[in-house]
Amino acid sequence: MKNKVNIGLIGWGTVGSGVVRILKERKKHLSRRVGAQLRLKSIVDLDINKARSVKVNRKILSREAKNILSDPEIDIVVQLIGGEHPAKDYMTNAFKKGKSVVTANKALLAKHGKEIFKLARENNAEVGYEASVCGGIPLIRSIKEGLLANKIEELRGIINGTSNYILTRMEEENYSFNEALQEAKKRGYAEADAGLDISGLDSAHKLAVLASLTFGTSVALSDIYVEGIDLITLQDIRYARELGYAVKLLAIAKEKQGRIEARVHPVLISADYILASVRHNFNAVCLKGDKVGELIFYGAGAGQLPTASSVVSDICDIAGKLIRGGKGRVNSFLYDALSKKVSPINKLESRYYVRFTTLDNPGVLAKISRILGRKNISIASVIQKQRKEGRTVPIVMMTHKALEENMRRALGQIDKLSVVKGKTVAIRVEEV
Amino acid sequence: MKNKVNIGLIGWGTVGSGVVRILKERKKHLSRRVGAQLRLKSIVDLDINKARSVKVNRKILSREAKNILSDPEIDIVVQLIGGEHPAKDYMTNAFKKGKSVVTANKALLAKHGKEIFKLARENNAEVGYEASVCGGIPLIRSIKEGLLANKIEELRGIINGTSNYILTRMEEENYSFNEALQEAKKRGYAEADAGLDISGLDSAHKLAVLASLTFGTSVALSDIYVEGIDLITLQDIRYARELGYAVKLLAIAKEKQGRIEARVHPVLISADYILASVRHNFNAVCLKGDKVGELIFYGAGAGQLPTASSVVSDICDIAGKLIRGGKGRVNSFLYDALSKKVSPINKLESRYYVRFTTLDNPGVLAKISRILGRKNISIASVIQKQRKEGRTVPIVMMTHKALEENMRRALGQIDKLSVVKGKTVAIRVEEV
Repeated sequence: MKNKVNIGLIGWGTVGSGVVRILKERKKHLSRRVGAQLRLKSIVDLDINKARSVKVNRKILSREAKNILSDPEIDIVVQLIGGEHPAKDYMTNAFKKGKSVVTANKALLAKHGKEIFKLARENNAEVGYEASVCGGIPLIRSIKEGLLANKIEELRGIINGTSNYILTRMEEENYSFNEALQEAKKRGYAEADAGLDISGLDSAHKLAVLASLTFGTSVALSDIYVEGIDLITLQDIRYARELGYAVKLLAIAKEKQGRIEARVHPVLISADYILASVRHNFNAVCLKGDKVGELIFYGAGAGQLPTASSVVSDICDIAGKLIRGGKGRVNSFLYDALSKKVSPINKLESRYYVRFTTLDNPGVLAKISRILGRKNISIASVIQKQRKEGRTVPIVMMTHKALEENMRRALGQIDKLSVVKGKTVAIRVEEV
Repeated sequence: MKNKVNIGLIGWGTVGSGVVRILKERKKHLSRRVGAQLRLKSIVDLDINKARSVKVNRKILSREAKNILSDPEIDIVVQLIGGEHPAKDYMTNAFKKGKSVVTANKALLAKHGKEIFKLARENNAEVGYEASVCGGIPLIRSIKEGLLANKIEELRGIINGTSNYILTRMEEENYSFNEALQEAKKRGYAEADAGLDISGLDSAHKLAVLASLTFGTSVALSDIYVEGIDLITLQDIRYARELGYAVKLLAIAKEKQGRIEARVHPVLISADYILASVRHNFNAVCLKGDKVGELIFYGAGAGQLPTASSVVSDICDIAGKLIRGGKGRVNSFLYDALSKKVSPINKLESRYYVRFTTLDNPGVLAKISRILGRKNISIASVIQKQRKEGRTVPIVMMTHKALEENMRRALGQIDKLSVVKGKTVAIRVEEV
């Protein structure tokens, strides 16, 4: 039996350094648990001179990925570089040499998952990607193995810490969106360019990975409807609270009658619901299985050591399979690939929170209601409080269930009314 | 390569029927995922005539456990009977025949875990026990595999659904303990004899299993300090709420300087903390790892299908190892056994909520404070509201950190004062 597993690390950045540290610090413990020595044989990075927090033997350092990819002794390639290129080439080269890959690159998996997992399977290689979604939370493993008796019907999660931090600070400190964003940057919860996070795109990358695994079909990034939190105002958060809701950016995927819904957008969720208590930069994912019911996983969604913790658990998992003679393994990702169709957002049925900005004239409400009524949208409640003669006032409505395409058409018409000043805000209500 | 794994089920009760149902309903899916056929070859139960919800071929039914234990074709014994005998004998016999066992019997593992896991290891057999704690939550797997890069420092959980249901109803409906208990029985959340649940003993069984795994040392049932919820009154829940806390029954295990703390008792936890939002009969466990930080797992802690879901995931895990040629596997439970010492409850340092029942005489507070002061217990705040001349009144105190043995001695003395009527209630505050 194999008693040593050789690891090559491509990408010696923040998470990479965390992995090196854990492999060193927990060497004895991990070897005992895996049943073989885990040997970090080679590290590749463009910059091998910058000081890192953990010392390594300089002999294992180099700048050339081929030193890992062409080394027949290396069993597992831990690839922690971002972007598509050269990440994808490295990964496919590794598979072709029969090496397994552990990665945190969600964007790559979201865009090329189908091709990547197919190639891995053809080469009998494993892909470890626990670290690609929700940092340190053992979510992928739980879905793949812990819940395999279940047909998972719904998945909804707070999977972008930056957005959740901003929304929490707006709600708790009455900050404007921009104040909260600046604070998030100052505290290191948002990068200088927070566009990927607040636009919802980062959540969409992760949702593509999670939904594909959960429903056993390839959910492409382009199949996912995406809205970010950049249009959420403090005013809407306050109205939501008054109505008994919290505003959260959720990634949602559901299977209904063989069709998949996959979308990322802000929602109103009941303030009582446990996801509403997820504060700051934490992540939480709720799954509903037909056998197990509702499960929630909560934890740090990013950060050096939480993410490295997931990378190391994948290394150990694959190493364990290798030493036990892992031929004929089953890679669950897309294995069941059933080519389920993804429903377009237009066909979504939802309740809506809608805020109109109107002139305070008699008959405004009647005009708006008439248009909504014609589109089969019925109103559950209305709030209209501040009255300032001749100025614009907000009218807030909660609707009953309506079809997204009807709502869009209605709002298109309403926003053209001369009494309506400013774009109407509509936020979907997520029933839990 | 083996392409069929034979399963024998001992105990065809509620959970057993759920397992049969899932194995039947998801046959194709599970076989594909495992890479081999899962064949339920034999079912043993004392009553094989009672109607069950899922039909099976009568030929596989019998009343004799030896039909499974002595069948050389059976690879995995799913043992779903409660109690110690004959459950323990069946299990040890299975190991001696080289069979792996999947069980939900937490009491058995809590009492004989050390011996059971040793025997399994000696016979190169696996023990699947995901279903023994927290029903459908994939917690054992997450600790064993997902978090193995971590040193887990703390574990705290709501792991008894019956107690949590009762406390939730008291808090939300202002029910007395007895009213809530009766409702729990009526709704099927408590058995006719709820003693095991409300005494904290059921939580202690589960904590013994969880703490042993988490800290890699045998934490015996007798090492765990246990208090139930039977002395919690609505009055205390209301005071706690006023002070910003919720009352929950927690199972707690921590490692501090190489010593283990393991205890089950009611606590006051901050109402903001996410565990305070766990309502009704749900379970939730919070773990703190040195790398991953805080993680929370939430879900159904009991019930036919959630528990069966965990049993099936264990079956698949073990089956997967068997078909890949599973010799030389590492069984993580107690593998690192380090014989860490368990601290006695007397050495616990905690803040306390204390409610005295006293005569409303001048000088009562002075007498009580003097005794506390002599034991180094300092008072953080006092509530004394209702005043009824000549009648007993509650005095509620929050203390600063104090040593448990000092608190016990102080309360012993205070309860002997002639102005103190009725036993003083003390509830520990769990800092999060």
